[in-house]
Amino acid sequence: MRSFEKRVSLESKKPIELVNISASLSRALDESGVKEGIMVIFNPHTTAALIINEDESRLVRDFEKALKDLVPWDAPYEHNQIDDNASAHLVGAFLGADLNLHISQGKLLLGTWQSVFFAELDGPRSRKVLVKILGE
Amino acid sequence: MRSFEKRVSLESKKPIELVNISASLSRALDESGVKEGIMVIFNPHTTAALIINEDESRLVRDFEKALKDLVPWDAPYEHNQIDDNASAHLVGAFLGADLNLHISQGKLLLGTWQSVFFAELDGPRSRKVLVKILGE
Amino acid sequence: MRSFEKRVSLESKKPIELVNISASLSRALDESGVKEGIMVIFNPHTTAALIINEDESRLVRDFEKALKDLVPWDAPYEHNQIDDNASAHLVGAFLGADLNLHISQGKLLLGTWQSVFFAELDGPRSRKVLVKILGE
Repeated sequence: MRSFEKRVSLESKKPIELVNISASLSRALDESGVKEGIMVIFNPHTTAALIINEDESRLVRDFEKALKDLVPWDAPYEHNQIDDNASAHLVGAFLGADLNLHISQGKLLLGTWQSVFFAELDGPRSRKVLVKILGE
Repeated sequence: MRSFEKRVSLESKKPIELVNISASLSRALDESGVKEGIMVIFNPHTTAALIINEDESRLVRDFEKALKDLVPWDAPYEHNQIDDNASAHLVGAFLGADLNLHISQGKLLLGTWQSVFFAELDGPRSRKVLVKILGE
Repeated sequence: MRSFEKRVSLESKKPIELVNISASLSRALDESGVKEGIMVIFNPHTTAALIINEDESRLVRDFEKALKDLVPWDAPYEHNQIDDNASAHLVGAFLGADLNLHISQGKLLLGTWQSVFFAELDGPRSRKVLVKILGE
């Protein structure tokens, strides 16, 4: 079993934004040449997250709103005395920084309606996602 | 390190339902013959999720209710103009589609009170879960 | 690719508490001698979880409060007839029991502001976290 490291870079354009990174992940897999294995994806940012769902434009807007409702966005958080983004930290941690996908026959095994999104929670910013591919 | 692929099929019977799939996962592990490694479990559906917790009947009912409270279930989501299940998409994405378990001495290393559940959020439906076993 | 198993033990001191376990995880990695690979971390407890975020004291206090707001903490859960901790179970399952980190050049690949926390939700208790290291 071999191991490959890739990096996906992206630019978010809004404070809260879902950015579909599925095509970038597929490109990273193609470059590795791995046919069977797993892809371990990691977001190294504390005010962002990784989620999987359907890339339907109305649903994406619903998501961008719902992310602000997971925690009270404007509560008097202590961290806001330092940096006005405590709610982005909270939602990022609740959603999670890591994601694992199956690789089969040289493709990412996503369901018919699934895309992988980088969830920006404190944008706009330049961001990156770390990709580790383990397999043959 | 070898790699095995298995699939667990299930039928949910209610709109929101926790289905304990621990025994099916253990059976998949037995079939693989792997003694040491990891199991990477993936849910390919956008209105469902995977969670780990205790299979106690009262707690399971508490969970089924609480899943409806994670987001406002009947809010005027735009996606509902297409398909009346935006809240199921939101909760599914927030809970997550993947799960990793340790395999040791031929068994799944779950805690004393832990079971793995498929969380149906838009049932009843026929569903499947993809299982990748990596190990020796 | 080789596999190592480690265990991190900890004592929580409060009912809800974030305990930074990053140093313990790094020590486990050093002991394994693995330079390239992944670390698959698993929490075997049903009233606790693993999260990644920034270890800034004010933000940690914000987190400890926000964890109580993810679900109504004192609702009349049925499980509370048996054991008065249903809300801890719910939050634990929503946050998740597993976490995967990349290992590169003998170090855990965490972002500049990231630490790994054990989230105690029903303390104080003696707890453990299972660590599987796969790599070379």
